[in-house]
Amino acid sequence: MSTARAASLGALAGLSLGMALPLLWRRWQRLENNSTQAVHAGGPAVHVPLETLIKFVTDCLVAAGATAEHAAMCARVLVFADARGIPSHGVNRADFYCAELEHSLIDGKATPVVVEDTGCCALVDGRNGLGAVVSHRAMELAISKAREHGVGWVVCKGSNHYGAAGYWANLALAQGLIGFSFTNTAPFMVPTGSSSRGVGTNPICCFAPAGGDSFQLDMATTTVPIGKVEVMARLGKRLPLGWGVDRVGQPCTSPAEVAAHGGLTPLGGAAETAGYKGYGLGSLVEILCGVLSGAAVGPDVPAWVTSRPAQPPLNFGHCFIVLDPHRFGSDFEPRLAAYLMRMRGLPAAAGSAVLVPGDPEKEFESKAAARGVELQNPVAVSLRALAERLGVEVPQAFAALDMGEFRKHVLS
Amino acid sequence: MSTARAASLGALAGLSLGMALPLLWRRWQRLENNSTQAVHAGGPAVHVPLETLIKFVTDCLVAAGATAEHAAMCARVLVFADARGIPSHGVNRADFYCAELEHSLIDGKATPVVVEDTGCCALVDGRNGLGAVVSHRAMELAISKAREHGVGWVVCKGSNHYGAAGYWANLALAQGLIGFSFTNTAPFMVPTGSSSRGVGTNPICCFAPAGGDSFQLDMATTTVPIGKVEVMARLGKRLPLGWGVDRVGQPCTSPAEVAAHGGLTPLGGAAETAGYKGYGLGSLVEILCGVLSGAAVGPDVPAWVTSRPAQPPLNFGHCFIVLDPHRFGSDFEPRLAAYLMRMRGLPAAAGSAVLVPGDPEKEFESKAAARGVELQNPVAVSLRALAERLGVEVPQAFAALDMGEFRKHVLS
Repeated sequence: MSTARAASLGALAGLSLGMALPLLWRRWQRLENNSTQAVHAGGPAVHVPLETLIKFVTDCLVAAGATAEHAAMCARVLVFADARGIPSHGVNRADFYCAELEHSLIDGKATPVVVEDTGCCALVDGRNGLGAVVSHRAMELAISKAREHGVGWVVCKGSNHYGAAGYWANLALAQGLIGFSFTNTAPFMVPTGSSSRGVGTNPICCFAPAGGDSFQLDMATTTVPIGKVEVMARLGKRLPLGWGVDRVGQPCTSPAEVAAHGGLTPLGGAAETAGYKGYGLGSLVEILCGVLSGAAVGPDVPAWVTSRPAQPPLNFGHCFIVLDPHRFGSDFEPRLAAYLMRMRGLPAAAGSAVLVPGDPEKEFESKAAARGVELQNPVAVSLRALAERLGVEVPQAFAALDMGEFRKHVLS
Repeated sequence: MSTARAASLGALAGLSLGMALPLLWRRWQRLENNSTQAVHAGGPAVHVPLETLIKFVTDCLVAAGATAEHAAMCARVLVFADARGIPSHGVNRADFYCAELEHSLIDGKATPVVVEDTGCCALVDGRNGLGAVVSHRAMELAISKAREHGVGWVVCKGSNHYGAAGYWANLALAQGLIGFSFTNTAPFMVPTGSSSRGVGTNPICCFAPAGGDSFQLDMATTTVPIGKVEVMARLGKRLPLGWGVDRVGQPCTSPAEVAAHGGLTPLGGAAETAGYKGYGLGSLVEILCGVLSGAAVGPDVPAWVTSRPAQPPLNFGHCFIVLDPHRFGSDFEPRLAAYLMRMRGLPAAAGSAVLVPGDPEKEFESKAAARGVELQNPVAVSLRALAERLGVEVPQAFAALDMGEFRKHVLS
């Protein structure tokens, strides 16, 4: 277990550096009592037109070793997350992906192979290619199977980090279909009754069309991501009960203990508040992704750090399901639209509003379409530094940045 | 909203009478810090051989107006729950089902009709038949579609209460397939940001085969069922934070306030501990069951009380998905078996054990197979009284019961 613990710590360090950068200039107090959308708004930022940013990140990934086609797929996933107000899964990770390509941890030229394909089911071997490339092939196949049979159910092994789960469900949504997207990840969750990390933050994601409206659920099966715990540590604050446990598996409010020695609690928190349900959901995602496909599973999923050895590869597993809702009658979309409006119209608690999953992200998307994608200065500075190192031309939007900030905050 | 609130209260009263009976003689202190398996063990009980109990309940349902075939389907679902240690969904509900049949709220002779059927998808109209009958037809169809296409995805409308979600997933499991089972229910959950009930306890259930072992997840998407809140009220105890909210949607530890004026929190509890995720999951189940099928939806699902009018019918919706895991390679079952053992073998926190979903229920099933199904005396007495009223022959196992208890506890 000590190797696994060390690996987890490494993963933590790697992930948290990436996630911490955008937070340096934040107004910290805005975080309190808000466990969503922790990592945006606040400090100085640049705004970059969507397509410009995609091209820029594509160029960086190509310079690091991906084919032009693969790089573009990957860049779109990263920029999608920033545009939706989820910078933790955005271009903030471009230098991480580039490092994986440069160190040959990922094969930026690998083409995924369909190794099983009968009826509405298929298994894709990603051959250690970019997670976005593997997922693109799998989702494309699931969509075509859904058109033919009503359902497409495609699982992947031999893959890598696939970005924001919602990107993949959104491909189905764009075609009037219901899309589900799941992935396993390195273990950060401590299962109910255990003192050891054993399950990833394994997201559950489903997007469903409702005419001009839609339902967009994209959630980790832990209460919070590990980055949130890191933020609280920097703020010198205690964690709310239900976020994490200590090294012996007991509920814990010390962010340092949770981050370094304990781990995240499953959704629901302690057993008293039904945390075993979140653990059950995380395990279900593990079965759909790791076990069904033959990828790495649960406690054996390697830490996602650039210091890892090239062998064995990460071998992440994903699962994509596409359902054609029109197979059950013609009026699914108006029915869903009415349901969503019914929920939004429920009486609100004082100072609150009743939203449906995806409402906050859609608001960010509208802003990004109008003003360009917002990147907090530390993220933008870091991306420009990456581009300069790789010899990639930097767009105008990044020209006015004070690169001294990069040296001060990242290189110090 | 006041009609809906009144209906909710009625449902509460009806449900809680049924759920409270087995608790009368309990050692109350055993409940503390245990939010699962709240309603078993403790007081005097009878033990009834499984098939004897099924036949007995079948006879009662026939006497109340169901066909012999339909009654047997329904009885099996109820006894399944008792055998697994989930008496809240067991024969405890037989008198409720019988009353629905006797008052013609449910058509005990209705045959469900498949109204859409293409590829691996189908829609079943239950025509207000017993939930078990509708679900049996749907699951049978989903299994045959999974054999043919790899996946079967069948949704139902026009149905009624379908019992324990796991019974349906278990039908797929028994054939070496992965089974999913979902249903909507009358609203008890207060969505994040709202002060009003708007979503049911909408369960998520998945059973998956692993050779002699299996994964068996069956969970409501609220933190706890309403019956748990009732129990705490009787104990004169405060609720843990994260179980419920008050009439204005704020976190609340008063069981009386939560039960009568507020409602249940989604899994995750307050927004700070990501309760919006449980709300998102409950909504997802609503979409799969109510919206996809055209059944009643969300806040508009009627209360499940026998005092309801016959029109409109409940119109519950269900969703059943069956997946053939062998479509992705031949070694799914040993892989899942290894994963389950890997999880059980994780280091345990002091005084705990690491289980996988279904482990506690399997232990109950073994005991029931060896000793007969355990029914707490108040449940057994109530069932015998029902049989006597309906003129049904009572099995030997119930002979020694003191029927004075029925008059004392139920009729008082």
